[in-house]
Amino acid sequence: MIPPIDAQFYHHREQFILENGGILPELTIAFHTYGTLAEDGSNVVWVCHALTANSDCKDWWHGLIGKDKLFDPEKYFIVCANIIGSCYGTTSPCSIKSGVSIPSHTSFPLITIRDIVKAHILLRKHLGITSIYCLLGGSLGGQQVLEWAIMESHIIHNIIPIATNAQHSPWGIAWNTAQRMALESDPDFHSPKCGKCKNGLKAARAIAMLSYRHYATFDSTQKDHDAYVDSFNADSYQRYQGDKLVQRFDAHCYYSLTKSMDSHNVGRYRISCESALNSIKAKSCVIGIDSDILFPIHEQEFIARHVHLSEFHSVTSLYGHDGFLLEYSQLQSIISKFLEQ
Amino acid sequence: MIPPIDAQFYHHREQFILENGGILPELTIAFHTYGTLAEDGSNVVWVCHALTANSDCKDWWHGLIGKDKLFDPEKYFIVCANIIGSCYGTTSPCSIKSGVSIPSHTSFPLITIRDIVKAHILLRKHLGITSIYCLLGGSLGGQQVLEWAIMESHIIHNIIPIATNAQHSPWGIAWNTAQRMALESDPDFHSPKCGKCKNGLKAARAIAMLSYRHYATFDSTQKDHDAYVDSFNADSYQRYQGDKLVQRFDAHCYYSLTKSMDSHNVGRYRISCESALNSIKAKSCVIGIDSDILFPIHEQEFIARHVHLSEFHSVTSLYGHDGFLLEYSQLQSIISKFLEQ
Repeated sequence: MIPPIDAQFYHHREQFILENGGILPELTIAFHTYGTLAEDGSNVVWVCHALTANSDCKDWWHGLIGKDKLFDPEKYFIVCANIIGSCYGTTSPCSIKSGVSIPSHTSFPLITIRDIVKAHILLRKHLGITSIYCLLGGSLGGQQVLEWAIMESHIIHNIIPIATNAQHSPWGIAWNTAQRMALESDPDFHSPKCGKCKNGLKAARAIAMLSYRHYATFDSTQKDHDAYVDSFNADSYQRYQGDKLVQRFDAHCYYSLTKSMDSHNVGRYRISCESALNSIKAKSCVIGIDSDILFPIHEQEFIARHVHLSEFHSVTSLYGHDGFLLEYSQLQSIISKFLEQ
Repeated sequence: MIPPIDAQFYHHREQFILENGGILPELTIAFHTYGTLAEDGSNVVWVCHALTANSDCKDWWHGLIGKDKLFDPEKYFIVCANIIGSCYGTTSPCSIKSGVSIPSHTSFPLITIRDIVKAHILLRKHLGITSIYCLLGGSLGGQQVLEWAIMESHIIHNIIPIATNAQHSPWGIAWNTAQRMALESDPDFHSPKCGKCKNGLKAARAIAMLSYRHYATFDSTQKDHDAYVDSFNADSYQRYQGDKLVQRFDAHCYYSLTKSMDSHNVGRYRISCESALNSIKAKSCVIGIDSDILFPIHEQEFIARHVHLSEFHSVTSLYGHDGFLLEYSQLQSIISKFLEQ
């Protein structure tokens, strides 16, 4: 769990007050920038990352970001910040800093999506950014996009929320709960050390994989020889995915981020979701994946219906929710047309 | 984990050889019967139960079975047997019998659906049954129905497989694997005692609930007040379901039964699923639930397409796969018309 190379760090040496009443005594934000901020400040593309990603968006979203890609650092100043609670350099349940009492492990306070966006805003100001040309992200990243477009509607010109929702659904919360219960059933979850609780995290990842894919994905990629009675491909695949995640992620951070996702509700204390979405001034390109069972497409249609300047696009994918990390050619085509308008 | 009251027991005092090469030194089968076997043996209704049910089908399928119900013990001789691996009285990972070495706990051998049906056949013979008027069951119960209709096609006259499949899907196996991984992450799973591993089993149940229901089920039953940032209904509901199951089920048995479900493939060593289904002589009423994400309806359409004398019906439900335990009025209507033909 180390930040990706080339990560930069912003240290906010003051208390960071959280929406739910918790306090972080100070805040470190790990982030990446690619390209150069234009003199008139008009070329900022800000990417919000999803559950287990990090600030190196040129790596995990390589089909959209990089040299000769849709978002080329030659043209844009691209920023991505690791979110509070994640284990890639920003303050999280695993932060240890001598001399400062950071709440850690199971006592880490509840972080809402609004808290995550508030940290993005601190970094925005630190970087001297006064205008965001395009703000985009998928899943938990898209939840940040919507919150931010509401919180700073005067600064953000275009948003691209992908495979996301305006309020996390009871269904989504139930998925996250099952994952938290898997983490809790591993006694290492209650250990004071980070990087433990590997079996619990493996199980949580296997659960999540079911929500990121769907019946046809497994059917077309994990079929077996007809004579088998045991040791099926789908079983190995789930275990493989669990093994991979524990190499690069921490269970306490995972737990914290699922709670952040659950908290997402743009309508909280803003009359309703509809009226909150209505307050967005940015032009909006809302994208859904047709086979997404975790954030079904009617959730994105709802967003598009209530944001004034919006258009809605559906991406076809065999890969369900994961389509937002895979269907580059469709995403590229939709987004480039939107930005050319 | 005690058998339901009124359970009867059949003790098979010989080795029971399993499909995968394992051996049970002897076999106990817990079962229920309601009503009286007709002199001509023509009134047998045999119910096959699903994952966590027991042999008291008049209890868990009370909308279909009982006095003045579709299957009335006044008219039918109704039998339901607890399946191998389950903790309700039949030989399972939790069987302890002095003087006989029953493989137990994590060393319990792999039980296939064919093994489960082979045990049903032993009981059928013990009860003097030479003909089954109607064989029915949902989910894992439906898998047994199909296997049995193939293994003893000359004896079974009508079958009603509900919300089931001819071969368990990679998707279904992936769900079961996530549940097994949750069980494995609880250290009590590796304890020699049954009735432990409660946290792992709670998590497994929470995972399973997601597959038994779907987005709209949670959306319509678990919505929250808009001001919440934590302690959501969907979270409590998942934990409640976990807490309920551990009062009545054992983790090792659960693990074993998910492996049995994974093994299901009527086509194994029978050329193909299609040709195996083709060999069924019984009249078949195949029923699917329109919102079932675990056994999607195209799986039942596939069965109906390949069984000669078959009809297919779709049940409308908000409750997904669980519809087979809830939509009594639709099931009653479909089945009664089928049997009246």
